[in-house]
Amino acid sequence: MPSKKAVVLLSGGLDSATALYIARAKGYQCHCLVFDYGQRHRREIQAAKKLARKTGSTCQVIRIALPWRGSSLLESKRKLPKTRGSLTAGQIPDTYVPGRNIIFLSFAFSCAEARADGAVFIGAHSQDYSGYPDCRPEFYRAFRKVISTGTKAGLQHKDIKIMAPLLYKTKAQIIRLGHKLGVPFELTWSCYKGGRSPCGKCDSCYYRAKGFKEAGLKDR
Amino acid sequence: MPSKKAVVLLSGGLDSATALYIARAKGYQCHCLVFDYGQRHRREIQAAKKLARKTGSTCQVIRIALPWRGSSLLESKRKLPKTRGSLTAGQIPDTYVPGRNIIFLSFAFSCAEARADGAVFIGAHSQDYSGYPDCRPEFYRAFRKVISTGTKAGLQHKDIKIMAPLLYKTKAQIIRLGHKLGVPFELTWSCYKGGRSPCGKCDSCYYRAKGFKEAGLKDR
Repeated sequence: MPSKKAVVLLSGGLDSATALYIARAKGYQCHCLVFDYGQRHRREIQAAKKLARKTGSTCQVIRIALPWRGSSLLESKRKLPKTRGSLTAGQIPDTYVPGRNIIFLSFAFSCAEARADGAVFIGAHSQDYSGYPDCRPEFYRAFRKVISTGTKAGLQHKDIKIMAPLLYKTKAQIIRLGHKLGVPFELTWSCYKGGRSPCGKCDSCYYRAKGFKEAGLKDR
Repeated sequence: MPSKKAVVLLSGGLDSATALYIARAKGYQCHCLVFDYGQRHRREIQAAKKLARKTGSTCQVIRIALPWRGSSLLESKRKLPKTRGSLTAGQIPDTYVPGRNIIFLSFAFSCAEARADGAVFIGAHSQDYSGYPDCRPEFYRAFRKVISTGTKAGLQHKDIKIMAPLLYKTKAQIIRLGHKLGVPFELTWSCYKGGRSPCGKCDSCYYRAKGFKEAGLKDR
């Protein structure tokens, strides 16, 4: 039995799946938090549950239907962007959900503190989607300070680590690493749409295909 | 019509009610967020709704049942502490809910960003309950940095202010200020228990009574 315990934010996509496998490889016993936040479809929630089961991790689905809008991921009638990698640094994609990672992390740290876990893993990375403000290293540095000043664990110097092991990696590097760790990519779901099979056209499909191509691996 | 808009975190207690009246006095049109997070009773949620109505503010109740424990406010079988002011600096009360204000603030900023509001008001104060880590000034300074680095609004320099106008005030000072602003204290609910009338014994009742006494005012 691994002696260390961690909360893992699991979306069902390949990034968070890789983060889960990294946590396992580091010897953490994992408790996965999956968010049902009013996203367009439930495919990724199903994928996340399968991934948790596959790794023998416990899993909780947290329902936090955000009653406000402001993102094409939350509004089913809003058109999904197809930028095909044309976003430049500083541009924020229309799929940005206001404060999403801040909310996810706040739940994860609340959970980790209640369970007396030592770490929170998140699969955010700043490379491909450089436009998401809550995927940037400076945000994680700031959040670390919030935890050390604003939690009982922080005050009592029982440090809960924030682990974002993919932060500086490209999609291709993540895929290569995941492949090495045995991540069952066939169980992950990246497409912004919830069809029977991925659309192949949305930004998320685009970056996934590009990543696999650059990694020289086949996406089953 | 006030031209400025703000999200106000409203618990139904007298602190957040005073924060709401301060926001109104500063000319903000307010949107109140009330959290149903699995607390022991619903009296304070009802109180919050009445306060929002009274001020002509819009109001949303956010359900975020925390599926973990670790606080006597969340566990109905756990005994509520009666410290009667005996907690010393650095001691954290048993009513501390892991990461509660971090979660509340993350929702408030998500909401404010989606609505393009200019500020978030929170009635936290560091005096009486000096033991709550997420009521301390250093926590608010750290959270400000999270917002400026982790949100679209922050990146685009459309600053969403975090307003904690009671942070350095004692309970008596808050009550005096609220009294001046016309806060209907009779609508607020402080007691940790959800009986027909306040228990008069829990920590929250204790500090409320002490505050009114020190302020030289009568609590109706």
